[in-house]
Order: sequence, then structure tokens, then C-alpha cells
Amino acid sequence: MRRHNLSVALRSIHQEGGASRARLTGVLGLNRSTVGDLVGGLVDAGLVVESRLDPVLTGRAGRPSLVVRPLEEAASVLAVHLDVHWLRVARVGLGGRVLDRRTEQLPVPLTPDHAVARTAALAGQLLEVPQQRDAVVGVGVAVPGTVRTGAGVVGLAPNLGWSEVDLGTRVSEVVTALTDRPVPVAVANDADLGVLAEHLRGAARGVADVVYLCGTWGLGGGILTGGHPLTGSHGYGGEVGHIGVDPEGRPCHCGSRGCWEAEALAAAWAHPLGLDPDGVDLAAQVLDRLERGGVAARRTRDRASRSFARGLASVVNLVDPQLVLLGAGLWRELWPSLAGDVAPWLGRLLLPALRDHVQVRLAGLGQDSTLLGAAELAFEALLDDPLAARPAAAATG
Amino acid sequence: MRRHNLSVALRSIHQEGGASRARLTGVLGLNRSTVGDLVGGLVDAGLVVESRLDPVLTGRAGRPSLVVRPLEEAASVLAVHLDVHWLRVARVGLGGRVLDRRTEQLPVPLTPDHAVARTAALAGQLLEVPQQRDAVVGVGVAVPGTVRTGAGVVGLAPNLGWSEVDLGTRVSEVVTALTDRPVPVAVANDADLGVLAEHLRGAARGVADVVYLCGTWGLGGGILTGGHPLTGSHGYGGEVGHIGVDPEGRPCHCGSRGCWEAEALAAAWAHPLGLDPDGVDLAAQVLDRLERGGVAARRTRDRASRSFARGLASVVNLVDPQLVLLGAGLWRELWPSLAGDVAPWLGRLLLPALRDHVQVRLAGLGQDSTLLGAAELAFEALLDDPLAARPAAAATG
Repeated sequence: MRRHNLSVALRSIHQEGGASRARLTGVLGLNRSTVGDLVGGLVDAGLVVESRLDPVLTGRAGRPSLVVRPLEEAASVLAVHLDVHWLRVARVGLGGRVLDRRTEQLPVPLTPDHAVARTAALAGQLLEVPQQRDAVVGVGVAVPGTVRTGAGVVGLAPNLGWSEVDLGTRVSEVVTALTDRPVPVAVANDADLGVLAEHLRGAARGVADVVYLCGTWGLGGGILTGGHPLTGSHGYGGEVGHIGVDPEGRPCHCGSRGCWEAEALAAAWAHPLGLDPDGVDLAAQVLDRLERGGVAARRTRDRASRSFARGLASVVNLVDPQLVLLGAGLWRELWPSLAGDVAPWLGRLLLPALRDHVQVRLAGLGQDSTLLGAAELAFEALLDDPLAARPAAAATG
Repeated sequence: MRRHNLSVALRSIHQEGGASRARLTGVLGLNRSTVGDLVGGLVDAGLVVESRLDPVLTGRAGRPSLVVRPLEEAASVLAVHLDVHWLRVARVGLGGRVLDRRTEQLPVPLTPDHAVARTAALAGQLLEVPQQRDAVVGVGVAVPGTVRTGAGVVGLAPNLGWSEVDLGTRVSEVVTALTDRPVPVAVANDADLGVLAEHLRGAARGVADVVYLCGTWGLGGGILTGGHPLTGSHGYGGEVGHIGVDPEGRPCHCGSRGCWEAEALAAAWAHPLGLDPDGVDLAAQVLDRLERGGVAARRTRDRASRSFARGLASVVNLVDPQLVLLGAGLWRELWPSLAGDVAPWLGRLLLPALRDHVQVRLAGLGQDSTLLGAAELAFEALLDDPLAARPAAAATG
């Protein structure tokens, strides 16, 4: 019971970046002295600190309220976002703030060996100081592919050309070498983590039915329905990229033809415009070509916008979300210029009852939705059992 | 607390058609005397009866076990399945058995007035005896359209040509006239109720990720993901019929073109084969024409099977279910003959990782999935609060 209450209290402090004792009393539904005891337990564990808010700053009269804040430098995680062309590694503190980060471009094709070695190198830069190493309570890794829940095995990451890669174990080995002690590593699909972070901290706070889309070379989807993640029976749920949008369309790497991601993502723009689909600034190049105009640009714009609308309409008609969020990737960058091209098609293709309800918006956390979702995954063990999973520094201190 | 425990006990007895005291003790996690008291409460409420199983019949030696059975004639519901061409009304007893039923063909087009009047007429036939009227604790209505959750308002039933019909209130009026007291009426989408019943009592027992498809003129979908119904933010979730399968395809009544239901359901078969799409034995006529062969039959078979596979592959790629169930409707009847035509396309269109996992099967409850789902909806008030919602006969007896 105490473990459960500590978990609820720390989760609340983490998600809100801090919470007053009054707020915690409300969340926990317990009396003030029990809440005081729980906060004391979290303070002793080196996870939070209590301070009085300055009443001048808060604008409220009377006795200043005690606020419990996460000790972000004392309890942190490593968040890893392995994208097709970019590796992002961040140190994220309890409370959800990015404390430090490293980003580098990846070669194509990318081998698992190289990805793990570069993850280790960037993690090493972020954990140079012993206190930083001792503070790490977990590692979360986001990959553009399907992951077998629990096992940390990437089943299939078509845009990396990977299948059956035991990434969890391999990342665990290199992190253990850095920290000199075992640190739990969890791996999950990038879009599933993106929608999780947007729901907790971004544009989908309080929204129960959300479709989150991301990716440039492939199209990942993370879906919440009724507040629950749509993971599917083998962790492949939400793989929207392979909805068929045109039976006569382009061949897709999955073996099928006319899949949404083949018709509306990088290849669908780059090939007819003569651009390199693996170019790192593809969106900027596409926008530049569209601005310069011409027949090929107009045709490509029409076809890809229509295809994007077709896939989106199928997903929205099936899922009935309140909100579609465009996360890190090509369409996030194209949307401000192309929303007007997509909207009329959506109007035609969506069920009449859904047309006026669904909103398409940019993700609230920008490029960081996935990275912050990976951090949430990494914090899960600590939030579930704060005393057992507290950082090494606190446990020995 | 007692209300909650009575609810859990009655739900278990209802779902399993009866339960031993030992089973109830396990489900409730309470001691035997408390369980005895709860069973006594349900017996006094006129909802269940206790009897000893004959040890010769059960094949087990020793003292015969006490079994608690639902009093199905004393606590029952009216289940109404309003299909495009058929009206089915049944009296379903606590425990989930159909006690009696009436079915009749409906005219096209069907007005709400006529549907309500015929529902009242069939319900009247099923409730001729006063005891039957007194036993009714609820009415559940399944419709081939979207329903605003809670309100009982059919938002849009395109294949009936209905929009914004307050069916709940209207059915409530005619049922009150029959029973001389208010009886709660709930309305829901036919496919959502179908998957509910299959999950509780049919082919999807214990399966958390299920896609249930039904319908002849339109294609309804009921989806469970992680055990939760995918209802969407306005109750339109699972509307699989308007996934796009062919951008150059047939116009759909929804205003779009090439929707799954336009390409693979009644119209897609009837028009090229020169059959009446509203014919009540359409499946038999289609199968007869396919057996007789010929160019039109072969072409239609190829095109509709491929279109069925396309829509199904998009749904399966998105939802990752363990099981796809074909409920009441055209494809349930065509499947035994056409599974071999659809399977190769599915093999091509499904993500490789899903091909070997997903099973397509006929629904376990046959034509009755939806009707039994409507019954479950109608029992909900009683199962939630057995003493407050017990039948009029028991309450006054």
C-alpha cells in the first residue's frame, strides 16, 4: 500500500514537474499527515525536495505553500531516439526536462553494431561525471520499427533493414559498461512513444482518442483509443504506414504496393522531383521545388497530398480520433504549406459526421515527442516502485 | 461494497450460465459465509436459484456441489436487431439464452416510424403473458449505424438513410406502453455489440484483440484492442466500411469513392452479376452464379475478393488482431467458398510479421452475435446494481 502511494505521489510530481502538498493530498485521497510521511520517504530517497513558494511570485496571499519538486539531476534517465538518419541521445531528469543532449547523423545503411556503438559513445559524453552516472535509473530506446513487448527485440524495422535485432540486450551491455552496474533498458516503437509523450506533456493532454504520425522515410503511427494505446496482439498495432491507398501505386518495401508510406512519404516526393530521398534536408528541398513551381512539382504536390489525405481518411474513419498530431518527420514540415492541398480531399473522404470534429495539428513537443516518450518509458520502473528503483547515488548515500 | 459484490457475483453467474459457490468464492475473493450471504441476497431478489448438481451427471464423486443458476424466465431483456432488411426481436433470459424470438422482413426504404411500430408489434408477441412483461429489466437495440453514446440517438445509419433519429426515446415509449412501467432502453452499433457478444460468449472468448465484421449492404466493424472496445471519440470508431480500397472505384453513398463496402459488399456483387442487391437471399444467388461460372462471374469474384482482402489487410495492419470474425452478413456466407480466393491477396498485402498470426474465422454465435450483444447491453443496468434494477415481479413479490 505504501509502495503504491509512493508511486502515485512520485508520478504526480514527475508529470506536473512539481506539486504542492495540497495537490498531492487531493490526488492520493489521504490525510495530510500520511501525505507528509510519503513526501518524507521520497525526500529521504533522494528523489524530491520540498521548498516554500514565494507568495510574491505566486501572487497568493497568506502562508507560502510547500511545493515538492523532483531532484532532476539526482534521478535521471537516458532517452535514445534511433531514427533512420539521426541518432538522438538525451539525459532527461525526473520531471521530464531534457538536461543535456547529443545528436549525430547516421550512415545508410545502418548496422545494429554501429547504432549500438554510437549510442554508447553519445551516452558516454552525457555521463562523464560520476554523479551523472549514479543518477541514471533507466534507459529508453525508441526505434522506427515494431518491438516485441517486454523483450526489447526489434522484430522488424523495414526502413533500417533490420529484423530480429535484440537491441535491448545490446544497449544494456554498453550502458552497464558505462555505469558499472545494471540499469534497466526498455525498447519501444517511436510513434507509440511519441503519442505517449504528447498525451502526458504535449498537445494531446487530456485527449483520449489521438492519432500521432511521424517519420520521413516510413510513416509510424501511435494511436490512443479511449486513453489506451492501440498496441495490437504482437505490438504491431498502429502500423498505419501499410494501409493501402492505391492498388496501382508504387511498390512498397513491405512487398505490397500503394501503401500509404510509399505514396506520401520521402520516396513519393523525391523520385518525381529528382531529389535524393535520403537527403537530410529533404523537406526543405521539397518546399523549395514546390515554390519554384513547374509541371512536375504541381503533379507531385497533387498526387502526394491526395495520397496523404487518403491514408489519413482511412485511419480517421476507423479510429474516430479528436486529434491527429504530426510529429517529427516530413509531414510536420510540409503541413504549414500543404494543409490547404490536403484539406479538400479530407473533406471528400472523411465520413460526413467526422469532418467537422477531427483536428490535424503539429505535435506540441516538436521534434522531441519521441525522445520524451523514450524517457517516460525509462522512468517507468522508478515511478512504479520509487524506493526499490531509486538511483544508485541515493541508495548508497 | 455489498452492491459491488452482488454485481460481480451476478455477472459471473450470468456470463457462465451458472456458477458453483466454490467458483463464486474464487471470483469474489471473499470467505464462504460472505458468499453465502450474497447468494442469499440474489435468491431473495428473485434473480437466481440454488440447486445441487447430480453427482452422477457431473461424474464427480462426493457431496454434490451447490450450483447457482440464473432464473432466466424471471429476469429477462428484449434484444432488438434492426438490420437493413430484417428485424429480429428476442426475449433473452438472465444467463444469455434466447427464450423466444420473432423475425420479419422489412420494407425498403425503412422509416423510423415503421421500424418502431414493428418493433413494438414483435415485442408485444413476445410479452403476451403478464409474467413475461414483469420480468423485463431492459431493452437493447442494435442498429447498422453510428450511435451517440448514452443518448440512444442514431447519428447516421447510411444504409437505412437515417440521420439524427432519437430511436432510444421512441422505443422507450412503445415498450413503456407494453409493460406499463419505464424500462431502460439502450441503443448501440450492431458490430460493436457483435464483438462484445463474441468476446463474452462466442469465438473470441479470452481474446483481447479482435476485429468483428458484419453486414450485407454496408460493412460494420466492431474492434477490441487490448480488451477495450475501439469506440472513438464520437462513437464512430471501428467504422471500417469507409476505408478506401480503390481511389478509382465505385461511388459510395458516403460521398467518397472506392470505399471497402462499395467494393466488396452487396452492390459490388449484385450489379455486375445482374442481381437485385436488395434481394434477401443475395448470398445464395451469388454463390449460385459463381458455381455456374462464366466471364462476368469470374471477374466479379476476382475483383470483390481482392477488394475484400485490401480492406481487411489495411485493418489488420493497423489493428494487429489475433482474430478476425465474420459475423452475420454477406461475407460470413461467402467465406467458405471464397476463403481460397482472398487468402493469396491477404498474403501479399499483410505485413510479413502478421501473415502467420492472424486468423480469419466465422463468428461463433452465428447470426446471433449482434442480438446477444444487444441483450448484454440491456442486462447492464441489472448486472451493475442487481437489487435496484431487479425485475418488477421480484421487487413486488
